[in-house]
Amino acid sequence: MKFVKNDQTAVFALGGLGEIGKNTYAVQFQDEIILIDAGVKFPEDELLGIDYVIPDYTYLVQNQDKIKGLFITHGHEDHIGGIPFLLREINVPIYAGKLATGLIRNKLEEHGLLRTAKITTIQEDDVIKFRKTSVSFFRTTHSIPDSYGIVIKTPPGNIVHTGDYKFDFTPVGEPANLTKMAEIGKEGVLCLLSDSTNSEVPGFTMSEKVVGATIRDIFSTVEGRLIFATFASNIYRVKQVIEGAVEHGRKVAVFGRSMESAITLGQELGYIEVPKDIFIEANQLNRLPANKVAILCTGTQGEPMAALSRIANGTHRQIQIIPGDTVVLSSSPIPGNVVSIGRTIDSLYRAGAEVIHNKVSDIHTSGHGGQEEQKLMLRLMKPKFFMPIHGEYRMLKQHMKLAEACGIPRENTFIMDNGDVLALGKDEAVISGKIPSGAIYVDGKGIGDIGNIVLRDRRILSQEGLVVVVVSINMKEYKIASGPDIISRGFVYMRESEDLIKEAQKQVQAHLNKIMKKKTTQWSEIKNEITDTIAPFLYEKTKRRPMILPIIMEV
Amino acid sequence: MKFVKNDQTAVFALGGLGEIGKNTYAVQFQDEIILIDAGVKFPEDELLGIDYVIPDYTYLVQNQDKIKGLFITHGHEDHIGGIPFLLREINVPIYAGKLATGLIRNKLEEHGLLRTAKITTIQEDDVIKFRKTSVSFFRTTHSIPDSYGIVIKTPPGNIVHTGDYKFDFTPVGEPANLTKMAEIGKEGVLCLLSDSTNSEVPGFTMSEKVVGATIRDIFSTVEGRLIFATFASNIYRVKQVIEGAVEHGRKVAVFGRSMESAITLGQELGYIEVPKDIFIEANQLNRLPANKVAILCTGTQGEPMAALSRIANGTHRQIQIIPGDTVVLSSSPIPGNVVSIGRTIDSLYRAGAEVIHNKVSDIHTSGHGGQEEQKLMLRLMKPKFFMPIHGEYRMLKQHMKLAEACGIPRENTFIMDNGDVLALGKDEAVISGKIPSGAIYVDGKGIGDIGNIVLRDRRILSQEGLVVVVVSINMKEYKIASGPDIISRGFVYMRESEDLIKEAQKQVQAHLNKIMKKKTTQWSEIKNEITDTIAPFLYEKTKRRPMILPIIMEV
Repeated sequence: MKFVKNDQTAVFALGGLGEIGKNTYAVQFQDEIILIDAGVKFPEDELLGIDYVIPDYTYLVQNQDKIKGLFITHGHEDHIGGIPFLLREINVPIYAGKLATGLIRNKLEEHGLLRTAKITTIQEDDVIKFRKTSVSFFRTTHSIPDSYGIVIKTPPGNIVHTGDYKFDFTPVGEPANLTKMAEIGKEGVLCLLSDSTNSEVPGFTMSEKVVGATIRDIFSTVEGRLIFATFASNIYRVKQVIEGAVEHGRKVAVFGRSMESAITLGQELGYIEVPKDIFIEANQLNRLPANKVAILCTGTQGEPMAALSRIANGTHRQIQIIPGDTVVLSSSPIPGNVVSIGRTIDSLYRAGAEVIHNKVSDIHTSGHGGQEEQKLMLRLMKPKFFMPIHGEYRMLKQHMKLAEACGIPRENTFIMDNGDVLALGKDEAVISGKIPSGAIYVDGKGIGDIGNIVLRDRRILSQEGLVVVVVSINMKEYKIASGPDIISRGFVYMRESEDLIKEAQKQVQAHLNKIMKKKTTQWSEIKNEITDTIAPFLYEKTKRRPMILPIIMEV
Repeated sequence: MKFVKNDQTAVFALGGLGEIGKNTYAVQFQDEIILIDAGVKFPEDELLGIDYVIPDYTYLVQNQDKIKGLFITHGHEDHIGGIPFLLREINVPIYAGKLATGLIRNKLEEHGLLRTAKITTIQEDDVIKFRKTSVSFFRTTHSIPDSYGIVIKTPPGNIVHTGDYKFDFTPVGEPANLTKMAEIGKEGVLCLLSDSTNSEVPGFTMSEKVVGATIRDIFSTVEGRLIFATFASNIYRVKQVIEGAVEHGRKVAVFGRSMESAITLGQELGYIEVPKDIFIEANQLNRLPANKVAILCTGTQGEPMAALSRIANGTHRQIQIIPGDTVVLSSSPIPGNVVSIGRTIDSLYRAGAEVIHNKVSDIHTSGHGGQEEQKLMLRLMKPKFFMPIHGEYRMLKQHMKLAEACGIPRENTFIMDNGDVLALGKDEAVISGKIPSGAIYVDGKGIGDIGNIVLRDRRILSQEGLVVVVVSINMKEYKIASGPDIISRGFVYMRESEDLIKEAQKQVQAHLNKIMKKKTTQWSEIKNEITDTIAPFLYEKTKRRPMILPIIMEV
């Protein structure tokens, strides 16, 4: 293998940093590759019109015969969302916990890929053995049930990947398996890959049970209708809300497709055990008194099409806010969504609702451990080498400092860029090379067909708009046959700018007539003349620089 | 006066809510109007290409003969940025504190409006008397020197506008004038307009002196170069950094135009008193050892063109990050900028710098008081009626709850939408009408010429791009003379999509030939046929919905 000696184990960061397609790692020993997670990233605002970002799978495609399996730590989109795109390239066997299996199956069904997929549901004590390597698991706590850390045994030593985790000592559901983690640490960890998301947050993350107490408190005190918005995949949160409704004699209506399917899945798998008749349809809502209903819905990130946003701005078909309603946002905003969530909350207030959210109430807790939990993981695993993963660069740096405080020398920590390869021997580690890496953009059906040129054009169009100049030219006589016509979009409101447009037309016409007098004028020259005439003219008049699109028709 | 009885005072919210052009209020008694602040709002991301948002000044223009003066609480952009746009419509006399006067003069100079402007610098004890009303001031503490609250005496009672404030008992500079506030309260306040920005933040805001201690601590411990980024207008912060440099024998280089002019102004007005030779030019930086220099710069909001962003991404002409550098972000992110600031911090780390920011250090404090300070203001002023101002709707609501806890009944609190008019008598208050209001967009030279249609087009163009279909038609013979040609921008990369484009051309051609056979085809019909043919075709192939622009040339 390139980059790595025959007795070394390689760790590949295919998409571990926040910026580029998320959370895909690979561990390779000789001809055996263990893949961990296949995430998808939701693009930042400046990737205009892009739906998802996925990592570059080139290395995996080139080495597909060596891939033993894709092991999933848990069922969040940033860990399983890339699976359909990966499977379209290579059909690798998938190993995942109970809930993640359910979510992956739903996802593959939608993409028409379920029939050919090979999915194995794993339990904590399973060991998946290959010829030279083996994979085992340890239970963690996170904001979704069935979250696991992964241990990959390789001849030079054990590689441990924590997945996303916190240490919730009073979780809803099963606690993290501290005993097994201690044993793994005792056996020896060559390299620990550990979640860095909250490395800038001091202390310990609040327990899910505290959120439960807040939920019960809300049910005890609120008189009107209750509308809970939360992440559908946070089954334990959903469970606590539904159980609160049962206790207080409220029926539950569910809005949002992902919430519906999460509840169905949660019931099938035994996470949510409530009487079937607790659930009602939307059209039954108005037949019950306000204090007898609760609504569960999606949309905590202010997504414009989700149930909560439509309820907030009054465009939901089935439910309108009425005075006395209380809306609970049991969530925290992803940084890019702060503004749109703020706007949703404002709309709810304006519509007459009371709003309870995480800024004013203990109604949400993070799924990721704070600094003390990250140190606890480091102390349990006692790794020789350390690779902070998951998070922006500054968070990985911060995690490195925490590791240093726990006795891991700085030179033993490796902050990996996407594409980096870490070569690990029994006693040494070095970033030894780089595989193809980068952000692949998914827009509609297209995967990777949108590049920087198209995005640059979208950026100009979005800020300044477009001016099309069309002219028919008789290239035999070097005369304008018709036009120039000027059409704009996103530039100025044409009806109110007739003078500006007329003046621009005149200028273009005059310049074209002038250059065509020499009777040898080329197309490219005409094109350039149009742009060189109209762009400075419009800038002078408006201080705007729209995209100029000259179109010349020959007749 | 419409909406208001002859013995009542009116308060107009021209732009008080976060969403629409900011912080412009007016108080009117009969034929005397007192204007308070004239702010500008920086648009949210979805206002594509818009530079600023200002309030609708129609009411002021229509009543310009009554306006006695524009009184400025302090010199921040969201309180003075609208002045050039307002002065272009009506030349009102301006009254402002010392620093605000300097900042306004600089701004009007840039806009070529200084010569005709009438600006009076006020002191705390000034009283500006008009025939029926008078205006006086009380000193507050905020993140910029010379911040004042404003008292407007009118026959039905006194109206108090706090401006932006916190209660910093150990400020840099002068403390708030609690005594005067208590006296104002004792005299009686009919209506209090109070800053709501931090109404969701419990407790008391940290003192500026704590930030000073952190700055001194950084100077004592850091060995390499120090790069401080902060808000230029926070003269006291800038002062503390420069004084730290003096104490520790470092010279200061200044980057960023607004920082340079703030320091010049701060020195002129006596806020910053340091030896002149403390400042060095950029080209002297490399002649001094790393521990003998400090750099002060702008760009704490991740603005792409500001000094800090260019330093971070390596495009600054005069300064590159070298290992050992420490960058201090003495600031907090405005919600919409969290992502871009995070990216700036990441780039600095990647370039090898250590970064100190407000998430990991007491290196910044808010200029706005928390809940306890808002209550202190309410207890001092003891107003009969209350109008929470400055902030998003939810913050105004929260401020109302705080006021209720301080004994102001809910029905005496008025949350004003932009354009609302509050009619105040000695004993009664009611929202009695609405003046023209709304967001006026400024884009380049254009004020108000960009409306929703242009913005909608920019939105579509930004997400999906554009497809232009050009065809020349011989309308006598009902035949295609040339084309259809298809050109796209921001849709797909054309060179890699030749087949798609060819197929689309063929389809359009076939459909046009078909409809023209009847020999009575209208232009509009041809246009529609082009769109109706190509839009579903492209959607099916790409799942994208670009803007379709059919252009028909008659020959």
